[in-house]
Amino acid sequence: MDRSIPLDRAAAAPLYRQIAEDLLASIRSGALVPGERLPATRELAQELGVNRITVQLAYRHLQEEGWIRSHVGQGSFVAASAPDSPTERAARVPPAREAMASSAERRVCTPAVERLFERARTRASWPEVGSDAIDFSGRVPDERLFDVEEFRRAVDRALARRGAELLQYGPPAGDEGLRTWIAERLRSRGIEARASDVLLVNGAQQGLSLVAQSLASSGDQVACERPTYHQALDIFGGLGLRVAGLPLGEQGLSVEHLRELLRAERPRLLYTMPEFQNPTGTTQSAETRRALVEVASLADLPLVEDDFEHELRFRGSAPRPLAALPGARHVVHLGTFSKGLFPGVRVGWIHAAPALLARIAQMKRTLDLGGGTLIQAALGEFVATGAYERHLEVLRHSLAQKHAAAQEALQRHFRGRARWTSPDGGYGLWIELEESVDAPRLQRHAAREGVVYTAGELFYDVPPEHTCLRLSLSRVDRERIEPGLQRLARALDGARRATGSNLPASSMPLL
Amino acid sequence: MDRSIPLDRAAAAPLYRQIAEDLLASIRSGALVPGERLPATRELAQELGVNRITVQLAYRHLQEEGWIRSHVGQGSFVAASAPDSPTERAARVPPAREAMASSAERRVCTPAVERLFERARTRASWPEVGSDAIDFSGRVPDERLFDVEEFRRAVDRALARRGAELLQYGPPAGDEGLRTWIAERLRSRGIEARASDVLLVNGAQQGLSLVAQSLASSGDQVACERPTYHQALDIFGGLGLRVAGLPLGEQGLSVEHLRELLRAERPRLLYTMPEFQNPTGTTQSAETRRALVEVASLADLPLVEDDFEHELRFRGSAPRPLAALPGARHVVHLGTFSKGLFPGVRVGWIHAAPALLARIAQMKRTLDLGGGTLIQAALGEFVATGAYERHLEVLRHSLAQKHAAAQEALQRHFRGRARWTSPDGGYGLWIELEESVDAPRLQRHAAREGVVYTAGELFYDVPPEHTCLRLSLSRVDRERIEPGLQRLARALDGARRATGSNLPASSMPLL
Repeated sequence: MDRSIPLDRAAAAPLYRQIAEDLLASIRSGALVPGERLPATRELAQELGVNRITVQLAYRHLQEEGWIRSHVGQGSFVAASAPDSPTERAARVPPAREAMASSAERRVCTPAVERLFERARTRASWPEVGSDAIDFSGRVPDERLFDVEEFRRAVDRALARRGAELLQYGPPAGDEGLRTWIAERLRSRGIEARASDVLLVNGAQQGLSLVAQSLASSGDQVACERPTYHQALDIFGGLGLRVAGLPLGEQGLSVEHLRELLRAERPRLLYTMPEFQNPTGTTQSAETRRALVEVASLADLPLVEDDFEHELRFRGSAPRPLAALPGARHVVHLGTFSKGLFPGVRVGWIHAAPALLARIAQMKRTLDLGGGTLIQAALGEFVATGAYERHLEVLRHSLAQKHAAAQEALQRHFRGRARWTSPDGGYGLWIELEESVDAPRLQRHAAREGVVYTAGELFYDVPPEHTCLRLSLSRVDRERIEPGLQRLARALDGARRATGSNLPASSMPLL
Repeated sequence: MDRSIPLDRAAAAPLYRQIAEDLLASIRSGALVPGERLPATRELAQELGVNRITVQLAYRHLQEEGWIRSHVGQGSFVAASAPDSPTERAARVPPAREAMASSAERRVCTPAVERLFERARTRASWPEVGSDAIDFSGRVPDERLFDVEEFRRAVDRALARRGAELLQYGPPAGDEGLRTWIAERLRSRGIEARASDVLLVNGAQQGLSLVAQSLASSGDQVACERPTYHQALDIFGGLGLRVAGLPLGEQGLSVEHLRELLRAERPRLLYTMPEFQNPTGTTQSAETRRALVEVASLADLPLVEDDFEHELRFRGSAPRPLAALPGARHVVHLGTFSKGLFPGVRVGWIHAAPALLARIAQMKRTLDLGGGTLIQAALGEFVATGAYERHLEVLRHSLAQKHAAAQEALQRHFRGRARWTSPDGGYGLWIELEESVDAPRLQRHAAREGVVYTAGELFYDVPPEHTCLRLSLSRVDRERIEPGLQRLARALDGARRATGSNLPASSMPLL
């Protein structure tokens, strides 16, 4: 195998993708044959002069795509062709198709997303993890809290009242009643909003992808927090956009770094999560928000404010959303029912200044002719009963208790070994280990101990400096939080012993 | 006003868009001021050496975008800035935003789509049209035939049976039960299909946009029938794709023209509607289908088969779908519940070979995390009752009668003045006038007579040779079809008289 993979550190694609693509080309061309052993990650990293994590990410990417198989203790091997695996079949498409698809291929992202959600849905479904595993992965609501009966009545009422209208094509911008209710709620937070300023979308994920598609084209740069929502990275990567990560501090993203970026570059938008940021759980301070909107106004930079969990604040008061600050005409505000209520309804919304919203709405109409009005109307019926407020009350109370339990357990088991955030709301929590531990090894040890979390590197566009973990408290019962973190501490012990050497962590401040 | 608009006949953008963009630039720069009268279409067409229709399309485009206003008998004028109109506000964004948005702007499509559906929904809502107008526009189902009660029970049953699961994130590919049912139906038509070969999408419109995004990138060429589904043109335009139109004959699209195209170009996909093509209603012959799949196999060209109305056949038997022919691995098959059942559920599906489907599914996951499982599960319950089959029976019977009435009335009122299709199923019908009549003038006369149709030029990527009309019989009661066509004939008389001169039609065969 020829290991002189040409790496372009200035290119849009992250190094690990460049490595993965090069290996893939070798597999496709037959230079690497089925069953052949790939070099050890350490070895290849040295040879290429890159961080070992970079090679690990490349291998993991190929593994997820079905091109290679990794066996613990044995290494990674080129997969044998298996007729039933879709991804492996792709290897056998004729060369002409190959060339034809090359430009579209740039858009294909890792299916990590799917597995993450599948795992979240089916709970602890890792093969190595027992059914009694404590699952901190998947930042999704606990469906045991869902008021299914009330929603069932709401759907029924909507259909009884409005009948066939809800089964016909509906207004492309979404159900008027629900948009009116959303506009009212936005106004209560100081955001200037009428129903016509609100566009309903199929979840905030579609919201972000529509905004990105409306404002940027392949090759353009977009800015975001580092770390950031992994699915935002997938959207940006899928659209061929280059990502500029801005470091996060305790006050939120670094506006200083943004200013610096703007001196050199021209990002098409900045994606930010001011409340309970994903993955870290931090909240942007009022000062950061003011400065951010000011800079954006001066630079004419659209800010995409993803406000996915603001309803889940259990203490303190929220600074005003970006969309409520002077200069808000540069803000595209994304909301959703997926965290505070039911993800399965696939209803989110976009609020933006009229000209900007018109452009986004046009994109939505072109791509899917609008969402399903029936569910939107049912949500309108549901919220009118007060059931949403009742649900949020329960959720906030439960989260307050869970976060308290988590902080206590972290103090007990991780003091001196890790730094962590202490969010005022939301499902998530972020841990950075003080010492450098091999991330996949830690995950294997955790699985053995019976605890599951989301590996931090998923949220980075470049390999992170520290080993990081995102915990979601949403679907873990309060009394299992302490045992879960104890298991995690034991996994860390195990991974350290196995590693042998514990490199000192750099002295970067937490967030 | 400087009328030397530089036109590039080899460019990707149709001539009318080039003209529209140039005029827009003049408005934005202030070279054309609010209230200023634009040159008459005839005059500008002569000056630019283009067909008058081209200029009319450009003006209509600008009018739809809110940049100009047209007054019958007075001409077109640059719009005054009106603070409440979103599109007009766009004119006042600062120059920096202007430059920033320019690449995204290429993706913005005409909102004709929206208005079409709004019109279809609200029936005959043209300001000039009375409430007793006979509306042949909008190829959408008649909601008076919807079995709302049965669907209401189906939703209720789904929620009662599966509860919270349906309100949580679902499988990204869609509800397993419904996919199994769809796969079974596909198999009954000779298509090799398992549930895992089916991806549920938010309507066939999303299906086509996902396929286009998965297989082609901005600047690429795609092939389709000419005329074709106007919303497909919007998708292609919105993604920055260049369109190559293939002429339609009685046997379907011209495979000879496709072969010729493939000698010179490398389209990324061919979009085709073999059954009851939209807008013409024609069906591809078995020979054309065989030849098409053969050519596609040799050229390694993906065929996108939009099978939206095949359930609505009321006579004869259908040739096998492209997806059931040898070489089907090049076929991406799109299906939908929007024409045969309820558009409002926003559920369609994609069937394709595993490698191809995996790529499309990944695109969908990235862009919106999958559709809503509740409605999919409810559809599964609904079809299991046999209610779908009963609905189709009623629909086919009604369409058979309506088409018969339409053919009779066309013979009576249009013999010698037009040529028209005689479809074996589906909602649509296509009329080409023998004589050249100014299309907007005809539409105005029709509105005055109280009859509404869809103007044929909407379905063309280039201005058509003839004045064409698409009629949809879906929501017109059978006994109003004859009076409707009589009104249309009167409108034609009126438009001819107004025109004064009747240019002889070219001797091109119908379709």
